Amino acid sequence: MKRADWFPLHPWIIRERGFDLGRLGWSESVFALSNGHLGLRGNLEEGEPVASPGTFLNSVYELRPLPYAEGGYGYPESGQSLINVTNGKVIRLLVDDEPFDLRYGEIIGHERRLDLRSGLVEREVEWCSPAGRRLLVRSTRIVSLCQRAVAAISFEVEPIDGDTRVVIQSELVANEAEPAPRAGDPRAAAALRAPLQGVFRTGTDLEAVLVHDVARSGLRVAVAMDHVITADGEVEIDSDLEPDLARTTVTAVVESGRRLRIVKILAYGWSSNRSVPAMRAQVEAARSAARATGWDGLLAEQRRFLDEYWRIADIEVDGDEEIQQALRFGLFQVLQATTRAERRPIPSKGLTGDGYDGHAFWDTEAFVLPVTSLTDPCATADALRWRHHTMPLAAARAGALGLEGAAFPWRTISGEECSGYWPAGTAAFHVNAAIADAVLRYVDATADTAFEADVGVELLVETARLWRSLGHLDREGRFHFHGVTGPDEYSAISDDNTYTNLMAQRNLIGAADAAERYPPVAARLGVDAEEIAAWRTCSNVYVPFDHELGVHPQAEGFTRHAAWPFDRTREDQYPLFRYFPYFELYRRQVTKQADLVLALHLRGDAFDPDQKRRDFEYYEAITVRDSSLSAATQAVVAAEVGHLDLAFAYLAETCLTDLRDLQANTHDGIHLAAAAGGWSAVVAGFGGLRHDAALLSFAPRLPPQLRRIRFGVYYRGRQVVVNVDDRQATYELAGGPPLELAHHGERFVLDGRVQRLVPAATPLPPPTQPMGRDPRRETG
Amino acid sequence: MKRADWFPLHPWIIRERGFDLGRLGWSESVFALSNGHLGLRGNLEEGEPVASPGTFLNSVYELRPLPYAEGGYGYPESGQSLINVTNGKVIRLLVDDEPFDLRYGEIIGHERRLDLRSGLVEREVEWCSPAGRRLLVRSTRIVSLCQRAVAAISFEVEPIDGDTRVVIQSELVANEAEPAPRAGDPRAAAALRAPLQGVFRTGTDLEAVLVHDVARSGLRVAVAMDHVITADGEVEIDSDLEPDLARTTVTAVVESGRRLRIVKILAYGWSSNRSVPAMRAQVEAARSAARATGWDGLLAEQRRFLDEYWRIADIEVDGDEEIQQALRFGLFQVLQATTRAERRPIPSKGLTGDGYDGHAFWDTEAFVLPVTSLTDPCATADALRWRHHTMPLAAARAGALGLEGAAFPWRTISGEECSGYWPAGTAAFHVNAAIADAVLRYVDATADTAFEADVGVELLVETARLWRSLGHLDREGRFHFHGVTGPDEYSAISDDNTYTNLMAQRNLIGAADAAERYPPVAARLGVDAEEIAAWRTCSNVYVPFDHELGVHPQAEGFTRHAAWPFDRTREDQYPLFRYFPYFELYRRQVTKQADLVLALHLRGDAFDPDQKRRDFEYYEAITVRDSSLSAATQAVVAAEVGHLDLAFAYLAETCLTDLRDLQANTHDGIHLAAAAGGWSAVVAGFGGLRHDAALLSFAPRLPPQLRRIRFGVYYRGRQVVVNVDDRQATYELAGGPPLELAHHGERFVLDGRVQRLVPAATPLPPPTQPMGRDPRRETG
Repeated sequence: MKRADWFPLHPWIIRERGFDLGRLGWSESVFALSNGHLGLRGNLEEGEPVASPGTFLNSVYELRPLPYAEGGYGYPESGQSLINVTNGKVIRLLVDDEPFDLRYGEIIGHERRLDLRSGLVEREVEWCSPAGRRLLVRSTRIVSLCQRAVAAISFEVEPIDGDTRVVIQSELVANEAEPAPRAGDPRAAAALRAPLQGVFRTGTDLEAVLVHDVARSGLRVAVAMDHVITADGEVEIDSDLEPDLARTTVTAVVESGRRLRIVKILAYGWSSNRSVPAMRAQVEAARSAARATGWDGLLAEQRRFLDEYWRIADIEVDGDEEIQQALRFGLFQVLQATTRAERRPIPSKGLTGDGYDGHAFWDTEAFVLPVTSLTDPCATADALRWRHHTMPLAAARAGALGLEGAAFPWRTISGEECSGYWPAGTAAFHVNAAIADAVLRYVDATADTAFEADVGVELLVETARLWRSLGHLDREGRFHFHGVTGPDEYSAISDDNTYTNLMAQRNLIGAADAAERYPPVAARLGVDAEEIAAWRTCSNVYVPFDHELGVHPQAEGFTRHAAWPFDRTREDQYPLFRYFPYFELYRRQVTKQADLVLALHLRGDAFDPDQKRRDFEYYEAITVRDSSLSAATQAVVAAEVGHLDLAFAYLAETCLTDLRDLQANTHDGIHLAAAAGGWSAVVAGFGGLRHDAALLSFAPRLPPQLRRIRFGVYYRGRQVVVNVDDRQATYELAGGPPLELAHHGERFVLDGRVQRLVPAATPLPPPTQPMGRDPRRETG
Repeated sequence: MKRADWFPLHPWIIRERGFDLGRLGWSESVFALSNGHLGLRGNLEEGEPVASPGTFLNSVYELRPLPYAEGGYGYPESGQSLINVTNGKVIRLLVDDEPFDLRYGEIIGHERRLDLRSGLVEREVEWCSPAGRRLLVRSTRIVSLCQRAVAAISFEVEPIDGDTRVVIQSELVANEAEPAPRAGDPRAAAALRAPLQGVFRTGTDLEAVLVHDVARSGLRVAVAMDHVITADGEVEIDSDLEPDLARTTVTAVVESGRRLRIVKILAYGWSSNRSVPAMRAQVEAARSAARATGWDGLLAEQRRFLDEYWRIADIEVDGDEEIQQALRFGLFQVLQATTRAERRPIPSKGLTGDGYDGHAFWDTEAFVLPVTSLTDPCATADALRWRHHTMPLAAARAGALGLEGAAFPWRTISGEECSGYWPAGTAAFHVNAAIADAVLRYVDATADTAFEADVGVELLVETARLWRSLGHLDREGRFHFHGVTGPDEYSAISDDNTYTNLMAQRNLIGAADAAERYPPVAARLGVDAEEIAAWRTCSNVYVPFDHELGVHPQAEGFTRHAAWPFDRTREDQYPLFRYFPYFELYRRQVTKQADLVLALHLRGDAFDPDQKRRDFEYYEAITVRDSSLSAATQAVVAAEVGHLDLAFAYLAETCLTDLRDLQANTHDGIHLAAAAGGWSAVVAGFGGLRHDAALLSFAPRLPPQLRRIRFGVYYRGRQVVVNVDDRQATYELAGGPPLELAHHGERFVLDGRVQRLVPAATPLPPPTQPMGRDPRRETG
């Protein structure tokens, strides 16, 4: 069946009917729950079958050597891999001597539901054991958004055709065996076998604590469990305790139609320097708090938390139920990846899988934080405070490279550069501009001066210092960055990447402005007038332009490269990097993802509208979107330049990336930037929201496929809700003092509710994509 | 002491006085003997101390995995490393219970001599054992240039202060322990432990044969030894035979002033598919032949071989004895690396060390074969026949890269690409042009039509096919090669590298011409008129030019890169690649080695004289010569454009590279291209020899440091000897029919002897080098 049919459409619930072993890994990612601190993949309670077991604590990683066939100066020697910590999800079930395992017996019914309002994953199974015993198994799982250390599972067994002997084994399991890694795919996480070393264990019948150290990274992980058992009849309780296993065993004969229910409470903690007794106490305290809250209490506070989130952040779209569902799924992913990350990195897959080794990239700052800055600002501040916390490492990296300021890593967990391929890692200095841009956007959205003084100015200053040392002035006084890699991963080591140059420009000016606004901070950082003047001089960046074609090359010389032979490239040769050498990709006009087009969005002020359209159409014909970091940006710019149908198609692609597994690798974890991209496509695309220059402006215009959209944002203490239909836009101040806005360039003050007409769009001939690479809603 | 003092100057003998453990590795390379098939490092007979034991058979390698921190399509997965095969050099000595070991006792005298006329290494030691026994040990070592499987050692012991009990153990040793590899230096060979697996052994008291298989590559190695013992008194002979050891033990009491002498004969063979009995028989046959020739016979035929070589190939220079010595040392290195390689690769270090894993690079075709084409043409033909033999692998590699024709490997032993860093490997397609150029130069020098029809045309055609598929035409009909790496390893992945484009041009035209001259060959290769026409169309390559500076950029945009901060680079930060990231090197105007300047030499026809001088001076200021592939080219072009003093300084640097250990890594093996470069600096530099266009032309002019030079070449069946002093040049036909030559542009027919005046040079202000990087004669 088509993937669209896996889920019945529902505005708030992701519902999977039936059970398909072939999509197990995918469903484990889609049904993963997280709060940004603790993440549980959607593994089955009974432990097996499993595609990739995953219990993640943000920043708990193991070190591994990075090997090189031919080494070089400055190559990182040690990588970091997010590890699967002690698994508390496991609740095994024995039914009259038969283990409950979906690979055996008969599945009469199987359903899983992720409810985006309650934040719960519920599961119902009707199963007939190989020996013919029928029973119902129901579970509900929560990872608390309110108590970040806590997860809980309600597990219920109901025999339906006779009294049944039931044995439930609820476990904590360390060092689970991983199924074999997918060889040959560089995106799949490197396997790390048994990294946990037991250092403490304790338990009674219903409770247990396990503490482990991670072998090479030295991090310490603790987990506590407790159980509340509800049964009509008698139950026997037993327990086991080993270094890598804590188990509570509940045995009962359950009458037909009666239920045996266990609520399992889990509390996790980790530290790089706290002692074993301290870690034990920490998780026992979190467990006590959760126990005091109780199962119903956990569910109630989760619901309240989400109600408050959806009140402003929700997006409504009329006209496409599938997209409505996917947009909310995406926002839920953003929320659960970021809201309790709390000064830890936000990995590109959240805590839903260990793809890309669980690393955080520039994705977060460029695609995720612009969304949270307007929907959950504290999450942005925390994420940027994490970057600031890693400043000493970034400064050391810059020093090792012979540069000034801070060079933030291309990929990392704890702040050290973990990229083992410098042309697409170290050379991609634009990560620093993305961090600076996220600071500027957050500050614009919140006017959070405490943040600015505390960390914002310093982030701007140290990245500006990097840019100054990285570039050089030519004889005409234009500033150049040579030999760098831009966002497009099918190009590398180019001169004057337009995106990089324009983003560095904003960074340099932003640093100069910030240093002037905060003289004491500037003084603390050693910034003087000469340095500020130098940043302004360097901000006169060179912007390449192809006068013959009338478009901006992605980098100097790009538009003179040979074309990619799209007509001779088969559909099964995508993603191209799996079938062609970098050598070929780098030297041709083929882009993996929005690069110049991302500059059209993020530095829209640097392009006039006609130029934007010409540039967009040029790159549209050569962008293959082998990256999930592309469709959202193409949606935003397509909408701005007037290609509304196309923008809608890209909206669909970005927000369906994981629900439809469009990149065929959702099993490694969800694509957080693409998930956030749904919001951007609607809000920045069809809503036309921009807030570059201390003004919140809109230029709403709907595609024909949508009758209405509704979205809300936080902006400088206000709550603004926008409703757009094909005729008009309604702006409503849902909280805070009056605020100046702009609608299609016209400024007005919002106090209460304001309506404005939506100007009609000028029809344009649709641009073309590379053969076979038009926007997707379905896996091929 | 200065390294210049290690050797007393002598025109034909490299003589080392004393013994210095600190330069042991260096001396092992300098005193290495080889014939291109079999190579013995200058390890001490007694086995220890040793820096790097080395017994090499051309193309006997082991496979090893190539690891990547982040893999990619088309990355080679398996590397090849030249291995140290069974060591037959070992002759241990026990003197009254004390092992002869230079680290103990007292060295009264120690001298080693490499005689370039006899092709022998002689050693004389006067040693006093810790127990006070004095004795003389003399050895003479030969690797036969006439019997390529054969080496022999004469070993003599003479007590000088009383009768002495002497035990000599002459061994074959497999899987010798290697001292620890030099960590962190990517140039040092990867260590490969115990790759040999014994499959056969046999022996009597004086004879033995060992056969081993190389574990992963599956190659089979056989070695036989025999001994002739000369003693005044009685000797006892004993032997041992183990899988990895064959030993003949000779025990005698030698009277003071008397000698015990052993002549050890070694015969080596290897095969990828011959059986154990066949391999055994092969080395026993070679041993029989050597035994029949006898020690004196081996020495006599070696002398005759070398006399014949030096008769034409020798270079005489009056005015600098050090350079005279070094030039002949360099020519001897070229001879012994190439003359019996016989359709096997010629590694960049010959068979003198396992540096660079014993790989062959473009060095051979670009810097070595142009010398042998005029001094030992058969060696060139054999080397190119080896390349031709690897054509199926090169065609497969091209196919894997999505290209046509043949893509020869950047580094290899058996023809597979072994480069683990594609920006400096796969992208360096100019290796293919170097092969084509070597074909064209060889054919011009020899008019060897059989070679052309057999392999030459095919090499030209398949490389031309590669270039055609690699480049693209712009709207003006100019052909471009984008994203390639030129000779300079401090740049990579550039558009339109000038050297590459011009060499590809010659390749394309050369293929078109050859296909037209050999219609049956062209037909066999499927070349039709359309393809020939296409090659001519593609040969209209784009040549970048910086009109503002009036120089050719090394590649498009190069002259707009930022300068390298030479004034802030300390002398101990060279070679730069050990102290700075590639990222910094690639994006700045700093060149490791001649690149555009190599084009000025090899494609001198594409530049006018004034332009050559301007270009040369521009690159002179930014070329740091962290590669040994640079000084010779700079010498040639400096001489051509009139910087004769500078040319002389570069002649000194190239020919002293190993004798003075200027790159501080001669311990890994000699620098064959630099050794050949001495010839080029004299003959192409001060002799002004060119033979690009079926005309042997000269433009001799001496630097003030030299009073006279003399050199000879083979050219199309003639032997031409040229004598130049500061006034005139004398051309002499030493063999073959009359021949048209050119002297400073004036054509004449040589028949007998012709004299011509040397026009005076115009003085020029000397160009500058990067700070601290002027030409070197001494290690700093």
